[in-house]
Amino acid sequence: MDRKEKYRVEVCFSPDEFDRYKQEYASVVAIDVLRATTAICAAFEHGVEKIIPVSTVEEAEAYREKGYLAAAERNGQIVEGFAFGNSPYSYMTPEVKGKTVVLTTTNGTRAINIAAKTHKVLIGSLINLQAVIDHLTEQPENVLLLASGWQGKFNLEDSICAGAVTDALIKSGKYMSDEDSTIAAMFLYRKARENYFGFLKASSHRRRLRNLNLNEDIKYCLTPNQTEVLPVYRDGALVILK
Amino acid sequence: MDRKEKYRVEVCFSPDEFDRYKQEYASVVAIDVLRATTAICAAFEHGVEKIIPVSTVEEAEAYREKGYLAAAERNGQIVEGFAFGNSPYSYMTPEVKGKTVVLTTTNGTRAINIAAKTHKVLIGSLINLQAVIDHLTEQPENVLLLASGWQGKFNLEDSICAGAVTDALIKSGKYMSDEDSTIAAMFLYRKARENYFGFLKASSHRRRLRNLNLNEDIKYCLTPNQTEVLPVYRDGALVILK
Repeated sequence: MDRKEKYRVEVCFSPDEFDRYKQEYASVVAIDVLRATTAICAAFEHGVEKIIPVSTVEEAEAYREKGYLAAAERNGQIVEGFAFGNSPYSYMTPEVKGKTVVLTTTNGTRAINIAAKTHKVLIGSLINLQAVIDHLTEQPENVLLLASGWQGKFNLEDSICAGAVTDALIKSGKYMSDEDSTIAAMFLYRKARENYFGFLKASSHRRRLRNLNLNEDIKYCLTPNQTEVLPVYRDGALVILK
Repeated sequence: MDRKEKYRVEVCFSPDEFDRYKQEYASVVAIDVLRATTAICAAFEHGVEKIIPVSTVEEAEAYREKGYLAAAERNGQIVEGFAFGNSPYSYMTPEVKGKTVVLTTTNGTRAINIAAKTHKVLIGSLINLQAVIDHLTEQPENVLLLASGWQGKFNLEDSICAGAVTDALIKSGKYMSDEDSTIAAMFLYRKARENYFGFLKASSHRRRLRNLNLNEDIKYCLTPNQTEVLPVYRDGALVILK
């Protein structure tokens, strides 16, 4: 296939940069491996019906007061007064089955809501990696992989996940890329793919990972292909793409 | 040396993100390998006395009308009416010796001026790589390496240059880093260091490099350690650090 006939896949490292990248794309895959988009996929895998992503704790509180199940995380911790944060394990309970959950997180829900203003949004993570790749290979379109980052900054795990999607889409022969960020994400993915957990642990002295002390959560978030769900944003909420 | 006693070196991939990173640093190294900071170093190497970086073409025109040597580049081209752009070769002429040059470029001068509002600014490139490393090793301080990027977006060459500085500073034993962007920059540097030109050419389909058709310029910009000058921003202009 000629390069000009291919679809574009590119990587944007942070929601802060989204305005620079957002032209030209039919859809956006929002990625927050640690832990919002992983938790969203885990929640659907375990029977949640719908997730309403909101950007502020206040919005989540307003929903909670109306009787919704509400989850709020800031800086890695469950916000006081909420039953859930963004640990994927918190959704592995019969309590959530068939329910609508309202969710706000430090980075992930912000990325989702920024992209949803103008684009179709899919939810990507390592745990549903192959589902994202399969969908975009079967129904190719110009797609931007949007890393949520950490407080607006570049982070490794989202970039590696974006690099994994890009690598597979380019290998499918249906996609090409032009941005340096996309090339960098693919290099990082190839460096990390043998052992995501080992790579992050060995390469990162990051205070946030040390402080979170969430080894079990992180191992879950970094284990690819645990679910086939592909959440999509529709009419103000996330649902599973059928 | 204990980690806590070390100085910090970190990498910021774009001036758009500078606000997220700018705390905690005593100085900023502005990097625009293709081509502004390389041209600045080349100009000093060839006898320019002082460079006034301005952010807009209008400002450069105003200086030109007052009789200054003025250089203006936008999107890789010399702006009409100006004698110089940002090609390092344009400064390799006796005409510039001892002169003050006013310079505006698409990405590089913007990064310099954003950082200079709040920080001491040094000028880094591959052609003065060792000079930057030597200075920061001899006079360690918390330092942020600021990539100019391309129209606000991540670019490989600035990130690789920043990774080269980081790698050397951390090896000196006097520095540590905490940001994922810094780790990523070091990985990219290690991937590219055997052959910067080959790496960029092989890995990048970028339209901008193809369109610029500047192989000679790019080869010059990607050849490390051609000069020992270390430009620094002082009182509104760049001069050589003595």
